[in-house]
Amino acid sequence: MRVKVLGSAAGGGFPQWNCGCSNCNRIRAGVLKGRVRTQAQVAISAAHGKWLLLNASPDLRQQILENPEFAPAEETRSTPIVGIILTSADVDCVMGLLHLREFQPLVIYATAGVRRVLTEENSLFRTLMRAIPPVRWESLEIGKPVGVHQDSAAGTGAGLHCTAVSVGGAFPDYVSDALRRNLPEQEAVIGLEFCADGKRFFYAPNLPGRGEEWKRHASESNLALLDATFWTDDELVRVRGSGKTAREMGHLPLSGANGLLDQFKDVKNVRRVLIHMNNTNPALDEESPANRELRDAGWEIATDGMEMDV
Amino acid sequence: MRVKVLGSAAGGGFPQWNCGCSNCNRIRAGVLKGRVRTQAQVAISAAHGKWLLLNASPDLRQQILENPEFAPAEETRSTPIVGIILTSADVDCVMGLLHLREFQPLVIYATAGVRRVLTEENSLFRTLMRAIPPVRWESLEIGKPVGVHQDSAAGTGAGLHCTAVSVGGAFPDYVSDALRRNLPEQEAVIGLEFCADGKRFFYAPNLPGRGEEWKRHASESNLALLDATFWTDDELVRVRGSGKTAREMGHLPLSGANGLLDQFKDVKNVRRVLIHMNNTNPALDEESPANRELRDAGWEIATDGMEMDV
Repeated sequence: MRVKVLGSAAGGGFPQWNCGCSNCNRIRAGVLKGRVRTQAQVAISAAHGKWLLLNASPDLRQQILENPEFAPAEETRSTPIVGIILTSADVDCVMGLLHLREFQPLVIYATAGVRRVLTEENSLFRTLMRAIPPVRWESLEIGKPVGVHQDSAAGTGAGLHCTAVSVGGAFPDYVSDALRRNLPEQEAVIGLEFCADGKRFFYAPNLPGRGEEWKRHASESNLALLDATFWTDDELVRVRGSGKTAREMGHLPLSGANGLLDQFKDVKNVRRVLIHMNNTNPALDEESPANRELRDAGWEIATDGMEMDV
Repeated sequence: MRVKVLGSAAGGGFPQWNCGCSNCNRIRAGVLKGRVRTQAQVAISAAHGKWLLLNASPDLRQQILENPEFAPAEETRSTPIVGIILTSADVDCVMGLLHLREFQPLVIYATAGVRRVLTEENSLFRTLMRAIPPVRWESLEIGKPVGVHQDSAAGTGAGLHCTAVSVGGAFPDYVSDALRRNLPEQEAVIGLEFCADGKRFFYAPNLPGRGEEWKRHASESNLALLDATFWTDDELVRVRGSGKTAREMGHLPLSGANGLLDQFKDVKNVRRVLIHMNNTNPALDEESPANRELRDAGWEIATDGMEMDV
């Protein structure tokens, strides 16, 4: 498996368009030692130059254009992108589907709950059905491996399987109460475990951190690419003066008792990489104590363009 | 009035992510004399460094970051962007509203019909209501000037007025039949006439070209920034082998009998600029006969970053 990070920030990106926090101000002024980042977007390839997108970020058009391996072959519409796998219905996971509306047959893998949110109360996504053949939705069931074929015509890539892993969490605030009542909450947010050639890659850009299932999958993987939205539980409350804590928003903070670093401290032999870092996270500053603490604990921090082989 | 073009292409941009047409292939290969273009996005400023966005393109985050005058003042969330005026509910006019979801109070001006499409059958846009105060929707009625204040607190910019102009056209295909039946079609697609200090600017990035109203407003303006999606009526049909004509899609083609150039040939004293050019339009090639014909007829072609004073 080849894993490519096209975007590494949380929703809004870094810097965020309307934010005047210390990190955003300093990166705009060119005085922060760190990198600008588009919103979290990952692609995975198993064979034959075909790619699956993990979520569809709001910056997806820009991300595709900046990485030439995603350009179509000359004189055709033969994009190497064959499908998208969604981990939630959050805006920053799904908005980019609308970038893909240009009459392109694609497969979208999602839980039934996420699919219902998009297709039953967001008519914009009908633009995806104009393709010939139209976009096809495939269901992901918790714990059930699915062959995510990289090239359905040739049957290549059949060795790549994806399993939806329950991580806790809730459907986004924007979902209507009427629909929410009819959706099983375990379908709201999932992690993805990919297996190919005896290797495992676990992806959870939104990690509420409830239950033990996510930790088992992360600990048994060769590569874990995990949610790094917030450094502390009260990070946004302190910046805004009010609002929800990290845990209330469905993000296990990195630091503190029972935070991600704490929960992972006894795990061995897993390449551990952080993604989906919010603009307020002090670790974005490469000279910060938080950044140093992450590196000392054996974590890498994903950057736009980073590639990993599993 | 200062008018700034942040994006100048039609939906999908140039190049388009999955397109292997001659224009897209050549711009990717660096052998087309022309410019890459993000999706159509215009901003207008009347006073005090505050800006109104005309539509909200899918590329809006990238466009804001690339133009430093839209960055917030240091240490605050005081974005100079105070509102958005929508001309239709097309994906490429509205998707960018989701880029603006970061808890920012804003005013969105739209016809009641466009507002209903977004708020009644697209729950994603509820993310805009999290701001304190939440995003405020203001109705545009055809033919009725509205003061689009640049700074509602101080009352500055009160001299800038916007009038919705009927241009024909239909609601997008994605809108449900049930809602469509209840919406007046004249609210589907509008042009915008701005007046300040005795000057007029007319904006119509989607110009079906029906009726005479649009032509009167365009002809009487100091600056007309108009739909240049397609060069010929059958342009997309020839590229794809099937599909709708330009006119059937709600775009008056530039060339041919009764096309935009033909209809505008006797108009004098209007600065005329083209925007919303589709990736298939031959005029994107600056060495093409189409491009030469446009320039010979007195038209300019908008590029990303272009600024105009009216």
